[in-house]
This record gives sequence, structure tokens and C-alpha cells, in this order.
Amino acid sequence: MDEEAINAKLLIRGGFIFKNSAGIYSFLPLGWRVLSKIANIIRDEVNAIGGQELFMPALVEKKYMEPTERWNLDVGFYISSSRSKTSGSPRSLASGEDFVLGWSHEEVLTAIASKFISSYKELPFSAYQIQTKFRHEPRAKSGLLRGREFMMKDLYSFHTDEQDLAKYYEEAAKAYYKIFERCGLKAIYTLAAGGVFTDKFTHEFQVVADVGEDTIYLCEKCEYAENKEITKLKDGDNCPKCEGIVKEKKSIEVGNIFDQGTKYSEALGLSFVDESGNKKPVIMGAYGIGLGRVMATAVEVHNDERGIIWPENIAPFRVHLIVLDGKNKEADKVYSELKEKSVEVLYDDRDDKTAGEKFADADLIGCPIRLVVSNKTLAQDSIELKYRNQKDFKLVKLKELAASL
Amino acid sequence: MDEEAINAKLLIRGGFIFKNSAGIYSFLPLGWRVLSKIANIIRDEVNAIGGQELFMPALVEKKYMEPTERWNLDVGFYISSSRSKTSGSPRSLASGEDFVLGWSHEEVLTAIASKFISSYKELPFSAYQIQTKFRHEPRAKSGLLRGREFMMKDLYSFHTDEQDLAKYYEEAAKAYYKIFERCGLKAIYTLAAGGVFTDKFTHEFQVVADVGEDTIYLCEKCEYAENKEITKLKDGDNCPKCEGIVKEKKSIEVGNIFDQGTKYSEALGLSFVDESGNKKPVIMGAYGIGLGRVMATAVEVHNDERGIIWPENIAPFRVHLIVLDGKNKEADKVYSELKEKSVEVLYDDRDDKTAGEKFADADLIGCPIRLVVSNKTLAQDSIELKYRNQKDFKLVKLKELAASL
Repeated sequence: MDEEAINAKLLIRGGFIFKNSAGIYSFLPLGWRVLSKIANIIRDEVNAIGGQELFMPALVEKKYMEPTERWNLDVGFYISSSRSKTSGSPRSLASGEDFVLGWSHEEVLTAIASKFISSYKELPFSAYQIQTKFRHEPRAKSGLLRGREFMMKDLYSFHTDEQDLAKYYEEAAKAYYKIFERCGLKAIYTLAAGGVFTDKFTHEFQVVADVGEDTIYLCEKCEYAENKEITKLKDGDNCPKCEGIVKEKKSIEVGNIFDQGTKYSEALGLSFVDESGNKKPVIMGAYGIGLGRVMATAVEVHNDERGIIWPENIAPFRVHLIVLDGKNKEADKVYSELKEKSVEVLYDDRDDKTAGEKFADADLIGCPIRLVVSNKTLAQDSIELKYRNQKDFKLVKLKELAASL
Repeated sequence: MDEEAINAKLLIRGGFIFKNSAGIYSFLPLGWRVLSKIANIIRDEVNAIGGQELFMPALVEKKYMEPTERWNLDVGFYISSSRSKTSGSPRSLASGEDFVLGWSHEEVLTAIASKFISSYKELPFSAYQIQTKFRHEPRAKSGLLRGREFMMKDLYSFHTDEQDLAKYYEEAAKAYYKIFERCGLKAIYTLAAGGVFTDKFTHEFQVVADVGEDTIYLCEKCEYAENKEITKLKDGDNCPKCEGIVKEKKSIEVGNIFDQGTKYSEALGLSFVDESGNKKPVIMGAYGIGLGRVMATAVEVHNDERGIIWPENIAPFRVHLIVLDGKNKEADKVYSELKEKSVEVLYDDRDDKTAGEKFADADLIGCPIRLVVSNKTLAQDSIELKYRNQKDFKLVKLKELAASL
């Protein structure tokens, strides 16, 4: 049962997500706020390395996937022209129109790029999208960690030669470190196999966590890491890069970067003319981050027995404001003032819940700051302030609240 | 051929969109900027009437659609458990798992709401998403006007009674007017039939345009309008609301609002307990806007023989900066300064294009302001400024440029 994963349990109980089908979730308003923040952090850092945002369709026609022999991979959800309905009068698609729901978009973007790129002058170039992907997972599990429908940032880069790709690959890796750091995750750059998508080595960004499906060997000193799938390292071995010792760790892959060489450009006819007038296939890289998986990983590593402890930058709201002893104007005023100052506030003024229920919900939802207005605090012209990741609370004078946030 | 529609022709030639398959388009960086601006205008206005943003899946399981008898509608793309691949070894979905690619999300959201709403205290409530929809159009055409995969804003509202829905319906209509106005469209509030989704009357927002598939009867005086599908009015009839005359017009439906009554809430078990303790089905409304269709409509109504004339708020960039006579530092400086001042600039410093080609591209792409730096303008410490929707240009002193924008 995937609801046994901590991320699924806390995110469902906290009202962040709703499970529609196995491996298929809705993002409710709280969860959508978190996902949107992750999206904007990614945009920020990918734009900074020159990525241009675009948006490709989910329905990918057979003509795109056949040249790379990826049309019939098991990973796809297919829609066939011979049968578009499960019963009743079928309305056929036009002849030969078969689609797969895109699980990645190398082919589509390569085909598009071939219409616009013809000279070395137009290279390098990189483009990305934040878009829903579909994978026919035989066993969806672990909440948002392994789904059948999920949001992904997929970035693709196009280069004249391997050297130029290598330079961008490094820039992308740096951008990835920044992204994960801003999302509150310590990601480990890990040498890995390419999986079904490439026969070259690749790199993964792994976050150490017991729920992870991956196993890595991580040097505790220099943080060099290799995925178990490709390594000969064993727990306790000497690090191949320094005098440290490698340890076996369970981990979650939150991102990956691939050197794809000319696999897609050759298959789909994406070439350029170099400075000497020679026609060559474009060299490509691909770079993925699963947004829901980042969200789930943040929950897996930042929680306690009472709920989620969101990293500051991806918390649904910065402040969770609770009013006790019945609605009152002072609390409403605090709410309005914080909103005016562009502080993101979740306001709990429900009058059919006990103080205990409200505190429990605040801890479960996990905003960084909890504020409580009650008759007791108002008697001192104050408000109670508590950080989710600290035990103690303090009283802050109402007029000093804005300054203290 | 759908490329005959003006929007398809100009958007494809201008590099805004790419046609992947019939009725299925990619939004390239320029087009994605426009679509994102439309999305943000919609968010702004829908948030202002209390809509909470969320995000539901595209894969909608049969269990959601059967209770409303919408499972086997022709409009859907279906994925069957009995066949998930078109050839090769099929990997079956779990037994009974049939999906349709959502063309709207009444059922899914109603099912979700039924887990959270139980009392009149939780009503009214409204939620929306901006998400990719799929419709099995027999004949996709007119570029972005009628596609098989497209982005839609779908808002749903939940109420205790028809009166409360009517109030919100009116608020939503006002928000829609604002949205279309900000997008540079004059939308006509039109009485219409509900189509396949409801048996009640509905309202559409129609933009008069020759390419439109709809026909409306529009009073030239008070702007009262009815869709031909439901009206007995004829061209030249007296307006039923004032002393004006109605005219027959071709038009594009850019938005619609539906009173859905209890159709979905009864089928999917969404009820609430009222103040007297009685259990009642929730009353619902639904409100749609197709983002790509708004974009296409803006192009259909704002263009000339040279290209698109984007309305200010949804233009991909505010300024299109052209440098002639070879790259130069002054132009680079203008570009940097404008960017620093957060003016959105598209910079054309290509050195393998003629002045004529660059002007033609600027007119085709259609940003509101064109700036040209050349040896001639630099000799006067100036830059040439021309509005896309005006004929004349003027010289502006470089140091006064920022102030004059």
C-alpha cells in the first residue's frame, strides 16, 4: 500500500493531495501551493542557465517515437487508432494515428528543433517545460515518489560538440544543486546507469532517505557517490576519490542529467552545418526533475511524529494564524495586516474546533511559523509565536509582530 | 486544413506554436509567454472571487464517470485495461482499470469535495485549475480554436441553494468580462444551450469574428445576445430587451458558465447538512475558459496584412529591439538597461538578416513597441520608436528612452 509511505500519509491527512487512483493524485489547494513554489524555484534556476520555457503536448504521435525505437516501450500508456473507446460505438481516429502519452519529450523537441536549427550559429540552445508526464508503472507506490501521472521539469540542451555539452552539463548540475538546496534538500551527485533511455553513464541527484528505492555508496568525507546498479563498491570500501570510506545508503532520486550524444538527433534528422561547412548531428543533453517527488522527498526528510516541517521556501504558507476563544477583531486585524505586508498566512478561525485540534492541524500542515491569538495573549496586547521546528514559543507585542517576522 | 485559419498561419509563421499532429500543438517560447500571461490574468481575477487553485489528474478512472453516465461519451480519449499497447507484449493495467483523458473535471472534483464538505458551514466554496484537457474532436480545425489537446481553466463552485449559486454566477460573469478585457477581447454575454454537458441554459462569452464556428444574434444597441442554437431570433428582428435591432454575427466562444444544479452532486454523493439538520445535495456551477482559444481569438481580431498586433497585456514582450548595421555596444546597453528596469524586451541582434527581414519579423511577431538602433539613429544619440498599431515612428533621445516607455 503506497499510503504507508510517510509522504503519502502526511500529505493526504494534511489535505495536500487526494488519491484518485493508484499512483494518480490530485493536488489540493495546499499541495498546489507547494508544487507551484517548487516550479518557480526550478524556473528561476533553469532560466538563469539560459533555458527557454515552452510546453509540448502529452499526446505524442507514433511518428515521433518510431525512429528511436521507443514506440513500444512498456513504460507508455498507448491510445490506439483501432480502438478509442472501451465499449459502445467506437469513433476511430484517423488512419494511422496512434498516440502514446509522453513520458519524456526528446523526440518531440528534437523534431521541433530540426525546423529551427540548421547552423552552428544557432547553438548551443536549451529549452524546458514543466508538464504532466505519464508512465505505465506496473506497481505505483510510495505516494508521490512513484506515480503513473506526475509533473516533471524536463530540460533539453543542444550543442555542436561534446565539449560544449560537458560545459552545460556542469552548469546544469550547479543549477540542480541550487534548486534542491532552495527546496530544503541535500542532494548527492551520483554516478549512475542510464536506465532504459540511454546506454551512457548519467548522473543522478540522490537524497538519502530510508524510503528510497535506490541504493548508493556514498563517501562520508568527500560525498562522492555511485549508484549500486553500476558500482563495484561495497559498504566500508575505500572511496575511489579520497581517503574516506563509502557507506551504503537508501536514497531517493530527485533529479537526473543525461548525456544523450547523437541518439535522438540522428534518428530524427537534427543536424547543423559547422564553421567549415560540414553537416553534423547535434549533440544533446537531457535533465529531469520530478516536482511531486521533490515535494514528497521534502516531507520524507522533514517531519516529526506530529506532522510535516516544511522547508521555508516551499511551505504552503509562511504563517499559520490560529484564533482561540471565538473569532475576534484583533485576530482579523493581524490577518489583514500580514496580508497587506505580503506575508503568506493561513488563517484558522474555525469556531467548531478545539484549541487542541487546531494545534494538531498546524503541526500536521507544517508551516514554518505558528501564531496564536487568544484572550490570554490579548490581555497582554500580544500574540504567541512558535516556529514549527522549535519547541518553545514566545509572546510578541502585536505592534511589533510585523517587524519580528 | 486548419492552417488556413489566420491564427494558425500567423502563430506558426511567427514561431509561437508548432503543429505536432492534427489539433495538437506545442507552445514554443514566444507562444508560451503569451499563454502564461493569459493564465496569470485568469488567476488574478478568479482568485479575486475566491477561487482556490488546485490541480487534478488527466487520467480519470471509469469509476468517476460511470455515475453520471459520461463514461462512454464520444468526446473522450479512452485507455482500456484490456489493451494498453498497440502491438508487442501488452502490459495489462490492473483489472477494471479503465481511464478516460479528462475533458472536464466535474466528477473528479465532486468526488473530492464529498470528502471535505459535510455542512452548510463549509459552503460556498469554489476551486479551479489550469490544466490540459483532451477532446476527441472528429475534425480538429482552425488552429488553436478547436484542438484535441488544449489548456483550460475550469472553475467549479459549490452552494447551498440556487440563490447563492446565482450570486456567484454573476460574480463569475463579471470576472470573465475583466479577464477578456485584459486580454484585449470584447466578449459578449450570450444566452446558450448547455451542449452535451447539461440540460439547462447556460451563458457563453462570444467574441465576434468571421472565423467563429458559432452564430449569435446580437443587439447592436444593448448587446443582448442569444446563440442561434436556442433562439427564435432572426437577423433584423427587434431586440427582446430594448428597442434595438439584432444582427446575425459569426463568433468564437471564449468562455462559458453553467448552472449544473445537482446533477453531479446527486450522482457522486456530495451532500451537506443545512442549518435545520436536513441533508441536501450541493448545488454546483462550472465555468470554463480555453487559454489557447483566447490566444487564437486575440490573433484573429488583432492583426493586419503584416502580422499580429498583440494586446498590451498578453504580448510576448513589450518591446522588440532591433539593431541594424552590425552589433554595437549602444544597442547592447539599451537592452541591458531596459531589462534592468524590468521592461520585457525581445532583442534581435542577428547579423545574418537584412533590415527588411528584421522589420518583417517584428511586424509578424507583433510586440506593441518596436525600437531600432542604427548608425543613423546613433549619429543623433537617438533610437527609433514605433508602435505596432501606429504608422509613424519617432526618434527618442537614448537618455530619455526609459522615461518614454
